[in-house]
Amino acid sequence: MATIGSGVFIKRDALGEWAKNILVKVGVEDADAGIVADSLLAANLRGVDTHGVTRMLGVYVKRIEAGVMNPVSRFDIVRERAATALIDCHNSIGQPGSRFAMRKTIEKARGTGAAFVATTHSNHYGAAAYWAMMALEHGMIDFSSVNTTATLAPTGGCQAMFGTNPFAIAVPAGKDIPFVLDMATTLVARGRVVLYAKQNKELQPGWAFDAQGRPTTDPRVALKGLLAPMGGYKGYGIAFAVDILSGILTGSNFGKHFPGMLAENLEKPTDVGGVFAAIDIESFMDLDEFSTRMEQVYAEVRSCAKTEGVERIYVPGEIEHAMAKERAQTGIPFPPEIRKEYIELGQRLGVPFPEA
Amino acid sequence: MATIGSGVFIKRDALGEWAKNILVKVGVEDADAGIVADSLLAANLRGVDTHGVTRMLGVYVKRIEAGVMNPVSRFDIVRERAATALIDCHNSIGQPGSRFAMRKTIEKARGTGAAFVATTHSNHYGAAAYWAMMALEHGMIDFSSVNTTATLAPTGGCQAMFGTNPFAIAVPAGKDIPFVLDMATTLVARGRVVLYAKQNKELQPGWAFDAQGRPTTDPRVALKGLLAPMGGYKGYGIAFAVDILSGILTGSNFGKHFPGMLAENLEKPTDVGGVFAAIDIESFMDLDEFSTRMEQVYAEVRSCAKTEGVERIYVPGEIEHAMAKERAQTGIPFPPEIRKEYIELGQRLGVPFPEA
Repeated sequence: MATIGSGVFIKRDALGEWAKNILVKVGVEDADAGIVADSLLAANLRGVDTHGVTRMLGVYVKRIEAGVMNPVSRFDIVRERAATALIDCHNSIGQPGSRFAMRKTIEKARGTGAAFVATTHSNHYGAAAYWAMMALEHGMIDFSSVNTTATLAPTGGCQAMFGTNPFAIAVPAGKDIPFVLDMATTLVARGRVVLYAKQNKELQPGWAFDAQGRPTTDPRVALKGLLAPMGGYKGYGIAFAVDILSGILTGSNFGKHFPGMLAENLEKPTDVGGVFAAIDIESFMDLDEFSTRMEQVYAEVRSCAKTEGVERIYVPGEIEHAMAKERAQTGIPFPPEIRKEYIELGQRLGVPFPEA
Repeated sequence: MATIGSGVFIKRDALGEWAKNILVKVGVEDADAGIVADSLLAANLRGVDTHGVTRMLGVYVKRIEAGVMNPVSRFDIVRERAATALIDCHNSIGQPGSRFAMRKTIEKARGTGAAFVATTHSNHYGAAAYWAMMALEHGMIDFSSVNTTATLAPTGGCQAMFGTNPFAIAVPAGKDIPFVLDMATTLVARGRVVLYAKQNKELQPGWAFDAQGRPTTDPRVALKGLLAPMGGYKGYGIAFAVDILSGILTGSNFGKHFPGMLAENLEKPTDVGGVFAAIDIESFMDLDEFSTRMEQVYAEVRSCAKTEGVERIYVPGEIEHAMAKERAQTGIPFPPEIRKEYIELGQRLGVPFPEA
């Protein structure tokens, strides 16, 4: 995750309201604008600014205005069985279709015990964790994944063939915070390499390759080259598997076929596919007992012997959870250049960007 | 995977027959002995010798003879819904319960489109790939995972809290070989560290930690310490997630609670949990179309530009597939010390170990 640490802080509710109103101005229907704004705001709250209002709202507006993403959402169920469904999103903005898919997933998992639903011909859907977390209050374990523009090469290759292809797993943990793992299959995010380039900092060995597939620590060289998959051939395999589920199985784009970086492409529909799966915990164990077991493993992990200099051990999602509590108070930081861009966007569309 | 490269080669069929007969001698029923022997032999054929007859048959015999694993399998369905089931294996040898679970998974996925079945109070089940591959001929994508003895620490910790917790994903690919990803969540297998220790070779930086959680390249120090998860906190998160699905959700052992290394423990039932999930491809797309798309992505990956010195790019499972073809001809290599142990075992039980 790439968190912005400083800037002018904008209050949560004001930012969410502004984002929603901006979307309505470019043609998104009211109820859809609400879910898009909420998903982006949730990412900002959790410190995942790469997927927040901070970055993606501007991208969505540009893509809608360029005519390459439909602001008015429409979806059809293409195939459906008791525990599965495939939903064609007709190039709609990603979040309304994802909400529809997650609701279907939850409804089906409640009936059959587990469900696997996918979207096709869709768009960027925000952070994967947002969708996985939707099933938490229903006593379900959830998984979501999405495919994206190729930035990593298969082992031995030096040509981008698969995206960072992120996935998220969310699990309720009784009275404790939920387990939320949301990760890209590259070792580090592209945004982090961009940051190092701006700061003239060397990358750590193993993070990236040049365009010939040779290791590099120069962030500028890496940006023209490739990101390393996590764990070498294992990350390559996981990125490939996510693409099979999200892209190949759904009839969406896959592999090297995406038209440019999702966030920058103003020429074509991106045609991404998303996956939403849920397991109803009560199909296996009473929720109370499961909760007790989750609380126990959390306590054990937190009391694990620590490496020198380490103060605290976190369960997956705990840092983001703490950040969300903090930012609910402080608001979301906007660096000067993004704030300037959004003030101008607000002026152009007649929705003034909120004051600090 | 840890492949043994040399030794005395024993023919496939003779080895499978011998392994089956040995199991029958220690009380495993005929049909069960067949699936256990087949799963171990399949691992050997694929070059995954850590999970083959080579290593695990001896372990199984010792554990059955020590009375900590039931040779006669018995399973009850504890909970069942249209797309899910939980199967109590009553400390049976792992493979018959896993076969029962996979058959249930396939049957359910055929009905509802997708299914998620789990086993509890079970034992080592061989290589995860073997189970995932069972659904291939049914036109299904399959996932299997299992939890195991803790060998990795959470990020910041220096105490083992989670196992290598392997998982496998198998996908049919039309006329081409199937996609088979089978991986542990540690960066390297423990068997590889043992090998380096024997050869007095230094580990690569980042593979392991000492008992205080500090990086080490000394394999002897590493064996008393911890294995690094792949991709740092990402591997920790995945190992944790596999434990939630396989251990916590199923009512089996989890986290740090396993009694010693699975392969060495002769004192207690291991109580591992396994997960078996399948997606029927036709719930999303005609199998023919899916096959064409898989063949296409394989062709694209294989023709990817190569890093200097690389001759060929493989899809996940391709190296193991080639090894299986080779070993079907050559047989399985047995290093002298293992061959000696198995000759003695064969003499003791009255089933002579096959000649080379």
